[in-house]
Amino acid sequence: MKKRERKRPLRPGMPPGSLVPLDKELTDTVSIQVIRYNDEHWEEETIGSIADLPPLDPAMKVTWINVTGLSDIGLIRQIGVRFKVHPLILEDILHTRQRPKFEEFDAYLFMVMKLITSRGVDSEMEAEQVSVIFGERYLITFLESADAVFEPVRDRIRKDGRIRTHPSDYLAYALIDLIVDNYFVVLENLGEKIEFLEDDLLTRPDPATLSAIHQLKKDMIFMRRSVWPLREVISSLERSDSPLIHQETILYIRDVYDHTVQMIDAIESFRDIIAGMIDIYLSSVSFRLNQIMKFLTLIATIFIPLTFLVGVYGMNFQYMPELSLPWGYPVLWGVMIVIASGMLVYFSRRGWL
Amino acid sequence: MKKRERKRPLRPGMPPGSLVPLDKELTDTVSIQVIRYNDEHWEEETIGSIADLPPLDPAMKVTWINVTGLSDIGLIRQIGVRFKVHPLILEDILHTRQRPKFEEFDAYLFMVMKLITSRGVDSEMEAEQVSVIFGERYLITFLESADAVFEPVRDRIRKDGRIRTHPSDYLAYALIDLIVDNYFVVLENLGEKIEFLEDDLLTRPDPATLSAIHQLKKDMIFMRRSVWPLREVISSLERSDSPLIHQETILYIRDVYDHTVQMIDAIESFRDIIAGMIDIYLSSVSFRLNQIMKFLTLIATIFIPLTFLVGVYGMNFQYMPELSLPWGYPVLWGVMIVIASGMLVYFSRRGWL
Amino acid sequence: MKKRERKRPLRPGMPPGSLVPLDKELTDTVSIQVIRYNDEHWEEETIGSIADLPPLDPAMKVTWINVTGLSDIGLIRQIGVRFKVHPLILEDILHTRQRPKFEEFDAYLFMVMKLITSRGVDSEMEAEQVSVIFGERYLITFLESADAVFEPVRDRIRKDGRIRTHPSDYLAYALIDLIVDNYFVVLENLGEKIEFLEDDLLTRPDPATLSAIHQLKKDMIFMRRSVWPLREVISSLERSDSPLIHQETILYIRDVYDHTVQMIDAIESFRDIIAGMIDIYLSSVSFRLNQIMKFLTLIATIFIPLTFLVGVYGMNFQYMPELSLPWGYPVLWGVMIVIASGMLVYFSRRGWL
Amino acid sequence: MKKRERKRPLRPGMPPGSLVPLDKELTDTVSIQVIRYNDEHWEEETIGSIADLPPLDPAMKVTWINVTGLSDIGLIRQIGVRFKVHPLILEDILHTRQRPKFEEFDAYLFMVMKLITSRGVDSEMEAEQVSVIFGERYLITFLESADAVFEPVRDRIRKDGRIRTHPSDYLAYALIDLIVDNYFVVLENLGEKIEFLEDDLLTRPDPATLSAIHQLKKDMIFMRRSVWPLREVISSLERSDSPLIHQETILYIRDVYDHTVQMIDAIESFRDIIAGMIDIYLSSVSFRLNQIMKFLTLIATIFIPLTFLVGVYGMNFQYMPELSLPWGYPVLWGVMIVIASGMLVYFSRRGWL
Amino acid sequence: MKKRERKRPLRPGMPPGSLVPLDKELTDTVSIQVIRYNDEHWEEETIGSIADLPPLDPAMKVTWINVTGLSDIGLIRQIGVRFKVHPLILEDILHTRQRPKFEEFDAYLFMVMKLITSRGVDSEMEAEQVSVIFGERYLITFLESADAVFEPVRDRIRKDGRIRTHPSDYLAYALIDLIVDNYFVVLENLGEKIEFLEDDLLTRPDPATLSAIHQLKKDMIFMRRSVWPLREVISSLERSDSPLIHQETILYIRDVYDHTVQMIDAIESFRDIIAGMIDIYLSSVSFRLNQIMKFLTLIATIFIPLTFLVGVYGMNFQYMPELSLPWGYPVLWGVMIVIASGMLVYFSRRGWL
Repeated sequence: MKKRERKRPLRPGMPPGSLVPLDKELTDTVSIQVIRYNDEHWEEETIGSIADLPPLDPAMKVTWINVTGLSDIGLIRQIGVRFKVHPLILEDILHTRQRPKFEEFDAYLFMVMKLITSRGVDSEMEAEQVSVIFGERYLITFLESADAVFEPVRDRIRKDGRIRTHPSDYLAYALIDLIVDNYFVVLENLGEKIEFLEDDLLTRPDPATLSAIHQLKKDMIFMRRSVWPLREVISSLERSDSPLIHQETILYIRDVYDHTVQMIDAIESFRDIIAGMIDIYLSSVSFRLNQIMKFLTLIATIFIPLTFLVGVYGMNFQYMPELSLPWGYPVLWGVMIVIASGMLVYFSRRGWL
Repeated sequence: MKKRERKRPLRPGMPPGSLVPLDKELTDTVSIQVIRYNDEHWEEETIGSIADLPPLDPAMKVTWINVTGLSDIGLIRQIGVRFKVHPLILEDILHTRQRPKFEEFDAYLFMVMKLITSRGVDSEMEAEQVSVIFGERYLITFLESADAVFEPVRDRIRKDGRIRTHPSDYLAYALIDLIVDNYFVVLENLGEKIEFLEDDLLTRPDPATLSAIHQLKKDMIFMRRSVWPLREVISSLERSDSPLIHQETILYIRDVYDHTVQMIDAIESFRDIIAGMIDIYLSSVSFRLNQIMKFLTLIATIFIPLTFLVGVYGMNFQYMPELSLPWGYPVLWGVMIVIASGMLVYFSRRGWL
Repeated sequence: MKKRERKRPLRPGMPPGSLVPLDKELTDTVSIQVIRYNDEHWEEETIGSIADLPPLDPAMKVTWINVTGLSDIGLIRQIGVRFKVHPLILEDILHTRQRPKFEEFDAYLFMVMKLITSRGVDSEMEAEQVSVIFGERYLITFLESADAVFEPVRDRIRKDGRIRTHPSDYLAYALIDLIVDNYFVVLENLGEKIEFLEDDLLTRPDPATLSAIHQLKKDMIFMRRSVWPLREVISSLERSDSPLIHQETILYIRDVYDHTVQMIDAIESFRDIIAGMIDIYLSSVSFRLNQIMKFLTLIATIFIPLTFLVGVYGMNFQYMPELSLPWGYPVLWGVMIVIASGMLVYFSRRGWL
Repeated sequence: MKKRERKRPLRPGMPPGSLVPLDKELTDTVSIQVIRYNDEHWEEETIGSIADLPPLDPAMKVTWINVTGLSDIGLIRQIGVRFKVHPLILEDILHTRQRPKFEEFDAYLFMVMKLITSRGVDSEMEAEQVSVIFGERYLITFLESADAVFEPVRDRIRKDGRIRTHPSDYLAYALIDLIVDNYFVVLENLGEKIEFLEDDLLTRPDPATLSAIHQLKKDMIFMRRSVWPLREVISSLERSDSPLIHQETILYIRDVYDHTVQMIDAIESFRDIIAGMIDIYLSSVSFRLNQIMKFLTLIATIFIPLTFLVGVYGMNFQYMPELSLPWGYPVLWGVMIVIASGMLVYFSRRGWL
Repeated sequence: MKKRERKRPLRPGMPPGSLVPLDKELTDTVSIQVIRYNDEHWEEETIGSIADLPPLDPAMKVTWINVTGLSDIGLIRQIGVRFKVHPLILEDILHTRQRPKFEEFDAYLFMVMKLITSRGVDSEMEAEQVSVIFGERYLITFLESADAVFEPVRDRIRKDGRIRTHPSDYLAYALIDLIVDNYFVVLENLGEKIEFLEDDLLTRPDPATLSAIHQLKKDMIFMRRSVWPLREVISSLERSDSPLIHQETILYIRDVYDHTVQMIDAIESFRDIIAGMIDIYLSSVSFRLNQIMKFLTLIATIFIPLTFLVGVYGMNFQYMPELSLPWGYPVLWGVMIVIASGMLVYFSRRGWL
């Protein structure tokens, strides 16, 4: 699994809160999905610009505005103005390599998280920055690209009425839960990859195996960097005394917090296992070399003395009495067979065969 | 020792508290054992469904309901309704890869723990999730499979009256103590396996040894992941100010807490020792290669010059005066014996033999 | 990337606050740039000595005095007298290997930071000590050498009026932000270097690669030593209850604090990755040796028995019946081809080819 | 140094406070030494059973009852009854693999510690569990075997009056101090062993050296497991607000606490040094292999071309003009000497000799 | 750099505060230097015994008594009596392997520190225990040997009046500062040694290099063991609320505290770098072996087939048609040159040359 992440351009000395379109590659089309709901019903629309967004409908419990694509700076700025969001927050939304964090304001709460998805053991690991702003009666999410990542939650709003009975903090929880569940899927895939590589290690270790282990290790480091601060985010949310967080939701937040702790445990265990795999790889490679060396030793050390002997009787001295003996040649063969057998016995006694 | 654990199915976006039968493999038959007791006597029955369970008998100090098998979602839900258990707790009971945790409610306390058993040094390590809910006068346990793991405690209730004189928190303590004692058995087995492998390391290191060490390391990682949060669970229980925890029981809980600390010490020590074993394995393998290489050096470097010499006198130059000397051949033998002996002396002086 | 840093001379027993010119090499020319600004306008001048510095202009919001070059002890001492700076602080400014730190006084705040710049992946990493003293209406900075590092901030004062609407603490923030942004540039370069070396590792590992990894590791250690205390400095600034820190600025300081945390995450990840690279290097080198050894084994073990055989028929025994057989020579060739092919088959079955 | 420790039998589900004789091997004879003392005089006796123990003599400041051997469960139970000791404490005394711990009760304080002794660098390291219960006017110690470990303290009571002027907490301190001093002796021996092995490492590394290092490492792990909790014990004792701990004694306890901290420092340093020794061992072994390989290279690569040359002139072609040249043979010798010398020069220039 | 340190004799069971001359080697002559000073003037004398010491002169701000040599137990005991020092403190002064520590009493403060000096990169690192007791108007220091280590401070008292204007706590600070400055010198030397060894590593790695790295590592461990507790000592001093510590001095103490933190940073960095050096050493050694092996492969694999060929034509078969061909010999030479060239080309294409 490789990961795909966009880079933050670096220009030291930029004023804070600058909203110039930082990433040149961010030319995706921007779309805005709006869902409004209350206990009884829900309505859904896709609008082209923020100007088309009507004022918050007081009959609706929650209005969820999902902005996909970050290339339209004007749009982000308009949302900032409309919902009175601090410029530094808008900057955080645009910087797509933000560390997961939580900020508390009087009128709204702000969270940045990393959504990591993976379609299978061998497919790319994809990182997507999710920014969430939620206040009384509204929740705004910002996604980098047009993936249907929030579809399961939208489906639950449409089909299962439960989300619709809760205020906006519960919707925020549902999104966090979705993100954490996606981490579990990724971890599961990584776990399968580890088991797959462990089999490889002893049977056919080659540099590609090591390279794969190194990639796994880097994936794990990337996961850690996302999950540890996510845990802090959820913990801050749980301990927040903002009136936007209702008592009933806290139990759910604590539940998803437990999941992140469990995930951290799993990541740490995987790290330990991966560290051990490198040792096994190195040892497995050296064991195979060992086997080959032993074979060479066997062949070479058996034939070297024999070759010496046949060399002796290839010499042209005039007076070499053995050469004229009629049984000299067969006796030499006998001697050589005895030497070779003796060495084989010696080797097998030393456990070298 | 390998470990056996069931996997948690992963479907991101599932609503919290969903009680659909998550694990397909969970088709074990479900059985319910009920024991009621007070200071004087105890009664025991096995019932088929929760409907057969009469109301809590006020004459009895504690009613212990043990549910074995988690495949009957309806049953779990009925228990939830009967004892007013939060849906998130029911979900935790069903998810059999839960991290050990402790939750405090007004009417009851909830704990998840891992019971790890091992029948011997070479047998599989088996993990079983144990969920415990206890309130005033009742305690409910949930087990994954029909193992007789709680039999020792049941026996003590039957034979030794002491448990029967205490309220439900003491029974909870007795179960925790049983779980912790089982960890010690597993650790003891792992300790024996370590000693066994340490002998192997120097005498016959092969990749199977390394593989066994790696497996040991993974077992240890698995143990840690169960024991560290178990320690937190017991610590939370000790520090809980719930009226369900009585003063007399706290001393016992602290005792079992001390045991987990001792276990963590042992696990950490084992980890250090195992890390050292990998070093020894690598070094032992390379030492043996060293020995073989040294033998090759000996044979090869002794015969190579001699083979050269006999080659010299195998040449067909017309004018090679040595060839016609009558004592040429024996003198050459003498020279070769001197060379070989000289090299043997040199090698033994360098400590290479 | 190498780093360039000046050494602190070591003479145990020097009285504290000694302002003798400690570094012999500090013979750079000293220059003083002064910028004064308020909401409406700004003025800028470069003065030769502190005597030329007029009293703080009450019409101006902030007077920023930037001293470049630390060789003129008299100048530093005059500034100390003029702004009532404690001698120990002056000593800290002169000792250019100071650990980043923050000191709070009634009339002013003092910070030392490390500015690390790098012009590209292969260019030298340069460390520059930045000391900042700021009080009501003034801010003094001290730089080691005449680099134009503060130019972006000066530009913002000239062109973008925002800085000019804030008191001196905001200017201090702007400088810290500039320093932190420079760290990101350096980290980005180090990250590219890591990716570059990772490619090298598997294709052409040589000691220069390892040396480069070691240098990277040392660079990372150097970064850590600068960034960890910088985080503490910013954190102290944020938590300071000095009246010099205004409420509006704290939000900005917290933002730059988040950046340092993100940077620390990145540094720690890089450290882990670099540690893994060394493993890969070692394994890659040994894999290549392995390949070469296997080739040697192949050639040697195939020819050694054949050479023995031709030696046999080079012997000069009078009675060697094979020698006089007319088809002896071609049969021997056949036998040798069979032996060589058999060994090749054996090797390829063992997976040694 | 090996360590000797008794194992705790493991039977999950045993009721807490069970005093059945757990260790089968614990069949040592049990003996009870009693010393009573006050400022003026002291009396000493050895009694056979607890029934022979008279009530605490009010004229005596402290009565010290030392029980050696833990096989007599009845005796332990009687002491428990006589001094009103909690059953869990009695169980802790019997379990001889207890982690060092401290428990505070109203009427008495309880400590378990490990006494580790070693008679020399090569002798076995012996672990002995020491349990101490002390209250107003009495102190009871429990030892596993009849070693004269407390003799130095008993001697000080007999000869040096100082201990006799203090209440029981000072006696407890004196015993802790004795235990800590014994650790220093063991550490000193381990330190000497480390220095001894360091010499071995470079001169004659063999697997026995590595095995010894591994044993050292395990000894150090064992030491840590005893000393870290001992530090906690002493720290708890120091911070205890029990009236049994007098103000004057606390200064002494703090002194012995400092010693344990110093010991922990030493242990951690030793761990680091031992870790380094394994690296040196591995490298030293591979360096020696290197030397041998280099010698082989020298011999083999010098003679292989020469052997080829003499083979050339051993061929039986009818038309080989060189063979009939009268100076062919000496010229060939000259050529071979030039080749051999050239290679030696080349090798020595590359630094391979 | 090696270190020189005296050993503490170990006799378990010694009563606390025993002042018997513990170290047999402590037979150095003892000398007492006394300096008295106030703002205006100072006087200096060397006295033979404590009896010669007049009462503290009330006209003098501070009387500094420096005792060099610890062999005269009587003298130490007399000082203890004269200045009412606790026996445990006197014992700490005599035990020259004390961990740096700080103790606070009503009438005086007590510190133990390690003074580490080094005369150059290759000279021995020397550890000297410095004990400081200071109260109102006096300060007593104890040194192990007659080194002139305090001379710089004495010089400042004589020449630079500043110390003389402060009470005894400032003198204590000056001594701590001197000690910390000496650490910087030692670190600087270690740093130079590291750079020197890093060069060695790639050019001429041999076991002596590794041994030197190991010694460096041990030096660093020794430094850490001195500096970490020294930091605690200084921190305790800074936070002490004893009236002996004056407000003005605290700023200076904080400054020296910052230096220790900086030193700890440096030590930790050095540790990381040293750990990396061992990796490089191992890899460098194995790279060189690699080079040699490759050369052997080249020579051996080129000549082995050729030697086989010349062997073929050395055979004595009666019917070998090639032997009688007139151009057989030159053609064989051609064939052999083609084979050797082909192999060289193959090797160079594989990158093995």
